[in-house]
Amino acid sequence: MTSPFRFDLHKTSGAARLSTFTTPHGPIRMPAFAPVGTLANVKTLEPRDLDELGCDLILANTYHLYLRPGHELIARMGGLHKFMAWHGPILTDSGGYQVFSLAHQRELDEDGVTFRSHIDGSRHRFTPERVMEIEQALGPDIAMVLDECPDPLSYDYNVAALARTHRWAERCKTAHTRPDQALFGIVQGGVFPDLRQTSAQFLGGLDFAGYAIGGLAVGETKEQMYATLDETCPAVPADKPRYLMGVGAPEDIIEAVRRGVDMFDCVLPTRVARNAALLTPDGRINLRNAQYAEDPRPVQEDCTCYTCRTFSRAYLRHLYKAGEISALRFGTIHNVHFLMELMRRIRAAIADDTLDDLRAEFLARYRLSNQAVRHDQRRRRRENLLNQTTK
Amino acid sequence: MTSPFRFDLHKTSGAARLSTFTTPHGPIRMPAFAPVGTLANVKTLEPRDLDELGCDLILANTYHLYLRPGHELIARMGGLHKFMAWHGPILTDSGGYQVFSLAHQRELDEDGVTFRSHIDGSRHRFTPERVMEIEQALGPDIAMVLDECPDPLSYDYNVAALARTHRWAERCKTAHTRPDQALFGIVQGGVFPDLRQTSAQFLGGLDFAGYAIGGLAVGETKEQMYATLDETCPAVPADKPRYLMGVGAPEDIIEAVRRGVDMFDCVLPTRVARNAALLTPDGRINLRNAQYAEDPRPVQEDCTCYTCRTFSRAYLRHLYKAGEISALRFGTIHNVHFLMELMRRIRAAIADDTLDDLRAEFLARYRLSNQAVRHDQRRRRRENLLNQTTK
Repeated sequence: MTSPFRFDLHKTSGAARLSTFTTPHGPIRMPAFAPVGTLANVKTLEPRDLDELGCDLILANTYHLYLRPGHELIARMGGLHKFMAWHGPILTDSGGYQVFSLAHQRELDEDGVTFRSHIDGSRHRFTPERVMEIEQALGPDIAMVLDECPDPLSYDYNVAALARTHRWAERCKTAHTRPDQALFGIVQGGVFPDLRQTSAQFLGGLDFAGYAIGGLAVGETKEQMYATLDETCPAVPADKPRYLMGVGAPEDIIEAVRRGVDMFDCVLPTRVARNAALLTPDGRINLRNAQYAEDPRPVQEDCTCYTCRTFSRAYLRHLYKAGEISALRFGTIHNVHFLMELMRRIRAAIADDTLDDLRAEFLARYRLSNQAVRHDQRRRRRENLLNQTTK
Repeated sequence: MTSPFRFDLHKTSGAARLSTFTTPHGPIRMPAFAPVGTLANVKTLEPRDLDELGCDLILANTYHLYLRPGHELIARMGGLHKFMAWHGPILTDSGGYQVFSLAHQRELDEDGVTFRSHIDGSRHRFTPERVMEIEQALGPDIAMVLDECPDPLSYDYNVAALARTHRWAERCKTAHTRPDQALFGIVQGGVFPDLRQTSAQFLGGLDFAGYAIGGLAVGETKEQMYATLDETCPAVPADKPRYLMGVGAPEDIIEAVRRGVDMFDCVLPTRVARNAALLTPDGRINLRNAQYAEDPRPVQEDCTCYTCRTFSRAYLRHLYKAGEISALRFGTIHNVHFLMELMRRIRAAIADDTLDDLRAEFLARYRLSNQAVRHDQRRRRRENLLNQTTK
């Protein structure tokens, strides 16, 4: 039987790659950005929105769905695609990151990790085999191996974690049997080039269907992240997709694509939309600001999304200020459209060998979000990881 | 200049009427139900949804929009239609009911009513002239006169309130000047036939573009409400639309149509949807119930709404239980569709002289909501009205 998966590399431009990853639920045009549907729903959106927005891939969170409504229930309802009525490609993470950042009283051992649910405190255990069972029950097109996500700045910790993560990767590979599901490995190693090299080579030898770069955007600087990508991308197999997990800031996506990354996911566009932060070519604007009270313009002048075709900033500000649920949806539609449009432009620029021009043009205009705030967010994520208990 | 408004009575069947009320923003097929868009947005829905659902008319609340974002801002932004991007007919209430049920420290006098905002405690005053100024600034197709909504069961209070409501109706008629806006009078008089007759005759003499029946569904029994409609409908001019304010329970709509009512509005379908209560031919079902956890059926088997075409009860229950915003939207889409479909069937039944059959068929299957709960809700609304202070 031929595999339903195929990675077609159409063109490179420098290290950037224009490609298509074909799955049982359709092709993913790469470089691709996946909006996050944590609980089997991209918050405030529905499948027809995702189609209209041109989303080829969405991510769902294994940790959350395992706890609620449960992977077995979803399997009995026909799997994730049927359950959520989204018939395009789906990727699930392994839940590892959530166990280390969201769950309570986590205890890590060689065999797996025990934790308490952040919802009701109930006790659970993830092992590589258990996570494969859960992801195969959920039934996404792409599943991720269980890994440990350590503080990226601690060398000693990363050495120990990496060895365990590699043993877990082997066990996941052995336990994974669904031929209609691609299993991706996750390269770890913090900000340390030698560890990343080791990890890329080890996982490359296991012949995964794709390779994620994990453990970034969790406490390191942007420069450290980009340098790590410079090391890692060339070290993983060139004939498989490369996936940078948890990254969604436009400037980071552009820089990562230039270094050879093919896939991204992030809650950024959906989460900030619910906080009235809308993405524009000039950077984020916050629609709660008084300056928009009587602004008749759309969020973004040339934008073709439903929100911009239909509503003024003044109206959207009114909805946000009044706490109307629709505001969250209208903001989300725009922000996801903004990222999808960025990905379309990136793919066109790789085809035309104009990615450097796109980068220069984009960054000249795009005002980066407050770096202090972002640094603080990353520091908090890192502290979460530092709290982890190892037996 | 000919008026842009026209009421065409196509057919009667018993006291029930099939008609069209034409407005500057299009025709309203009657009997009609208007979903409520309190703050210039039908909660969780957007204009394209309202089109798809077949909504001919929506209601917005003058009290709320006056407070936030302010009628003058909306006027500067081009009026309510342009502001909210809904280009079908809009009706605004007068804000009177909200002042008496929602605002704080209200003080009523002959000239108007002074109150404090429920949002920030700021002091405001509504008079008939002020409310006409606000509604004309908002710019709906249909505006309502300022009235007093008294406890429907107190005769003496209704006698005094009615006299004042009539003087206010005259002042509203004088103050109202927009030719592209229809002004409706509001018949009051509680559950007392003689007062309703007096009110209908007095307001009929003022030649309003339509006649609302106010002060019902606020503490009286269903039997008292139906009896009041029996008295009031024949007493208002037959060549104008009749509007029963605040009524949206399916069984009440059917009974009111049979007595000659042409228009309804209510928060019921949208509000209960946000509480996981979905309308079906068998009555309301609450999707939080465990019995739906693995129910693969749509909310309503034969329903053509997006929610029923797309999602299972099991999935919707998961979204409600997990607190996903999308659940509120999916529930709202179904409930509004349910009422729109009911209105379509009612109109067809009037055309075919089969309204009694529709009523029998509908009521045989539709399990009424818990009467004790509903009675309690109506009692609370009445207590709000009893708290009003008169100088």
